[in-house]
Amino acid sequence: MASKPTPNQSTAILLISCPDQSGIVAAISNFLFENQGNILDVDQHVDRDENAFFMRIEWEVDGFGIDREKISEAIAPLADKFSMTWTLNFSDVLPRVAIFVTKENHCLYDLLSRHESRELAMEIPLIISNREDLRSAAERFDIPFHHLPITKENKQEQEQKQIALIKENNCEMVILAKYMQILSNQMCEALPNQIINIHHSFLPAFPGARPYHSAFKRGVKIVGATGHYVTKDLDEGPIIAQGVTQVSHRDSVKAFIRKGRDLEQTVLSRAVWLHINRRTLVFGNRTVVFG
Amino acid sequence: MASKPTPNQSTAILLISCPDQSGIVAAISNFLFENQGNILDVDQHVDRDENAFFMRIEWEVDGFGIDREKISEAIAPLADKFSMTWTLNFSDVLPRVAIFVTKENHCLYDLLSRHESRELAMEIPLIISNREDLRSAAERFDIPFHHLPITKENKQEQEQKQIALIKENNCEMVILAKYMQILSNQMCEALPNQIINIHHSFLPAFPGARPYHSAFKRGVKIVGATGHYVTKDLDEGPIIAQGVTQVSHRDSVKAFIRKGRDLEQTVLSRAVWLHINRRTLVFGNRTVVFG
Amino acid sequence: MASKPTPNQSTAILLISCPDQSGIVAAISNFLFENQGNILDVDQHVDRDENAFFMRIEWEVDGFGIDREKISEAIAPLADKFSMTWTLNFSDVLPRVAIFVTKENHCLYDLLSRHESRELAMEIPLIISNREDLRSAAERFDIPFHHLPITKENKQEQEQKQIALIKENNCEMVILAKYMQILSNQMCEALPNQIINIHHSFLPAFPGARPYHSAFKRGVKIVGATGHYVTKDLDEGPIIAQGVTQVSHRDSVKAFIRKGRDLEQTVLSRAVWLHINRRTLVFGNRTVVFG
Amino acid sequence: MASKPTPNQSTAILLISCPDQSGIVAAISNFLFENQGNILDVDQHVDRDENAFFMRIEWEVDGFGIDREKISEAIAPLADKFSMTWTLNFSDVLPRVAIFVTKENHCLYDLLSRHESRELAMEIPLIISNREDLRSAAERFDIPFHHLPITKENKQEQEQKQIALIKENNCEMVILAKYMQILSNQMCEALPNQIINIHHSFLPAFPGARPYHSAFKRGVKIVGATGHYVTKDLDEGPIIAQGVTQVSHRDSVKAFIRKGRDLEQTVLSRAVWLHINRRTLVFGNRTVVFG
Repeated sequence: MASKPTPNQSTAILLISCPDQSGIVAAISNFLFENQGNILDVDQHVDRDENAFFMRIEWEVDGFGIDREKISEAIAPLADKFSMTWTLNFSDVLPRVAIFVTKENHCLYDLLSRHESRELAMEIPLIISNREDLRSAAERFDIPFHHLPITKENKQEQEQKQIALIKENNCEMVILAKYMQILSNQMCEALPNQIINIHHSFLPAFPGARPYHSAFKRGVKIVGATGHYVTKDLDEGPIIAQGVTQVSHRDSVKAFIRKGRDLEQTVLSRAVWLHINRRTLVFGNRTVVFG
Repeated sequence: MASKPTPNQSTAILLISCPDQSGIVAAISNFLFENQGNILDVDQHVDRDENAFFMRIEWEVDGFGIDREKISEAIAPLADKFSMTWTLNFSDVLPRVAIFVTKENHCLYDLLSRHESRELAMEIPLIISNREDLRSAAERFDIPFHHLPITKENKQEQEQKQIALIKENNCEMVILAKYMQILSNQMCEALPNQIINIHHSFLPAFPGARPYHSAFKRGVKIVGATGHYVTKDLDEGPIIAQGVTQVSHRDSVKAFIRKGRDLEQTVLSRAVWLHINRRTLVFGNRTVVFG
Repeated sequence: MASKPTPNQSTAILLISCPDQSGIVAAISNFLFENQGNILDVDQHVDRDENAFFMRIEWEVDGFGIDREKISEAIAPLADKFSMTWTLNFSDVLPRVAIFVTKENHCLYDLLSRHESRELAMEIPLIISNREDLRSAAERFDIPFHHLPITKENKQEQEQKQIALIKENNCEMVILAKYMQILSNQMCEALPNQIINIHHSFLPAFPGARPYHSAFKRGVKIVGATGHYVTKDLDEGPIIAQGVTQVSHRDSVKAFIRKGRDLEQTVLSRAVWLHINRRTLVFGNRTVVFG
Repeated sequence: MASKPTPNQSTAILLISCPDQSGIVAAISNFLFENQGNILDVDQHVDRDENAFFMRIEWEVDGFGIDREKISEAIAPLADKFSMTWTLNFSDVLPRVAIFVTKENHCLYDLLSRHESRELAMEIPLIISNREDLRSAAERFDIPFHHLPITKENKQEQEQKQIALIKENNCEMVILAKYMQILSNQMCEALPNQIINIHHSFLPAFPGARPYHSAFKRGVKIVGATGHYVTKDLDEGPIIAQGVTQVSHRDSVKAFIRKGRDLEQTVLSRAVWLHINRRTLVFGNRTVVFG
């Protein structure tokens, strides 16, 4: 057993949710032990009230007793026995991600910078926006930019184009990097727990539009940002990460916005990092985050 | 000019709010300059949207050109000229404070401990509670304890007894140190901006009862506490101080409560410290805090 | 499996450190599974660089297949096989703790308050001090107070009296709650990893005396506090918990000290809570904290 | 008086340090009052121990009774009277800044992103590096990139080229955005209090090389970053801003580095924002930050 893989080391990552019962950990441990699995990281959690068991386990592909294309098959009986919901991913298969933006550049640049430095191990085949403002930002990083303006009338149609683009590009997830449009149900349902949004408040405080203005008006002494999965209920999806910073009476609404931007980009990138490293599990409207 | 008075140094503290206009600072500066005022601390703020001016100025009583009992009189013309709302206090006149509690002891003990060490320069002539639980805590510190149980039927009557006790004891302010009763309007109006409450959430998130349970259910990653002035609108009064701490999926509701207690006592004591050091000004539903 | 025991539920807590090797988790899981252990909480960690395995596992005593007085015996073969260093504790056997103080009251009162509310499940048979200042605080809470003044000449002798008192009172641990004396090696060696100190800085910054003065002089924008195990090297023992808060140019040394006190009491109580709930493991000069 | 200028509003910003004495505030207030100065923001501070007075005052150029090119002349007698050290800047004259980098991209991209969105109101005529790694990053944003590799032998010569480039480009300040070379005295003295560095630790903890490795080895529970002015004493210059984040035993050195990057870019950009908005004053080895 050991802690973190080196970059060129391929790992398998198994994420499990199931009803809690005795023997799960022993069964999984034995399965890996018997197949010479060199476990790199393991974390687990039991929610007593929900009687639910959660686990993330990561091991080296190299040297494992089962070929990588046959691992799923080998896990299936175990999964059946314990009624597991599970996913198996490999660290060398990078998730493909579509980024949605509107006009603010900071979250986009933060994602692109971390992508370039390989902190965020993902592929970004396209950026979609309802405005033209950030085309040059996309072009700076040589990423195709799709302008799909949204009006009340064309919203459903444009979303279908977005979904088509996501499929064509084999994207498994979407990042809303200050995308100032509300997604319709069709989009939310097309990618359940695969769309991450950054909301510029400390949810559930100040949902909806203009949270900094509301926070200023309420006279709060701390502002926040929330990275969460998108569901059909606006700003009510499962929370992945939150951050806060202090404000005072000296801060105008503009200062709230400026200080909030620091949080937005950091919290969004952290939520994305957790997701693409397969460290998040959703149950009900909450998350388990193996950080 | 200088920063902080030594304990045995008496200081005068002037707090001012008024419509902003040119010449205020010059006028006050000149007034103190001409009377040999040795200014120890000055802070000011202008709210452009509200066109409002706020100032706190502290100077040594010893050596000042006007006798302390005649300072108010001397300020009056200046105050009239600029339509100031103002208060003048002296650091050697300790505010008298009534503490209200129910059954949780942590905020009470934190206040009493800071009182004993003179961090909180105030007098505590009485503790009032709707339960008997904390009588022994009050007795440990030799402070009279009044048990005034509250029911739907007797609430108005008991509050009148509370108000009478506050008056008899010449208390200028009330601290609700986890007092689990909602004050009626008569009480709020009797002591406007002189009642400080600690709410166990990051307001405006989770107002009302059982905020930790709500926070747990919502799956937040950070919990908070809020020290605020009490108004007739529950949990909507002007915020003085807020604090937050991280939680994770590993934390049960009990852990939320435990971690929250640390915040509650720290944030409440900070809010009280700011108030009794005359560092807070309320305007509308917000505060200026000269921290 | 489940999360947290209710107060009247007795639990067994096993803490393990050993060289990492395959099969440990499976072996422990099987041991508990075969004896009908209802696991309430489990956390583990592997340090790859050190090739070290750490685990904390908590299960219900009631219903377990082995009588509580025979559990150690039953674990022994497993422990031998994997060369484990291990401790077994029961939640209903409260640790007995000696608190050392000098003259500042805030950490002491915070501990006593949490003890009274049972947040800190421990017994405090005595308080020891090199000064008389806090005798009244001890008496308020009906805890025997021992005054053992320390001079260069009598230090060794007085420490022997301290050690004798600790033994007579069957204390397993010591809390230095702002005890302003340096312990000699004999004391450190008498209670290895059982003495917790609060240092009033963000270690390793500002070790030694007057850290707030040094922090002020250096012009830092954040101050901190550190709860750590005491070793013979002053302020260099394994860190359990740290906290920080912001300061600015407006803060005098006195304000640094005042803001720091909030941290000191919170961080010390957190470190103590972690220790007495058997959530800390020391390896080398670091800690694993199953928080 | 009012709070913050709108973007197209030109403001004058006066920064003052001088020995404290009565009448300074009155004198400055009167000077602006008599010339119809519309004050937008004012902040001041007195350091009693040093007997030093500090002030930042910002007012509208438009409508002021003195032409902008004659303001300095008008201030001079006042400045002489109170022995002021002072600077006068105008918000519409953007500071020209040279950015130094080595190979990590995150701080550079964060600065460039904030520059593009005009959060950082400055001009960046050049980027200098001792390596080629970030040439493409500079080119993405169309900023000239100068590669000046440094060896022990050529260091002095290359620094003279750097200084020449800074002068040719009329840069008033330098940002070390993870520039992994120690500046020699000649460079520090060429731009006193005009070079801002980000150090990847919570100074004064872990100065020098590889702070994350040292922090990991020491077993700290919090890591930090420090934005500071560069002086000839490495990592000992006046601190402008600091930030911290929590770590645990689960975090490897790599995780320390990853979490630290978030701090580094945020803290550096905040320090730069404060500096170019003329909100920092250095005295001795400390700063006054009118945040």
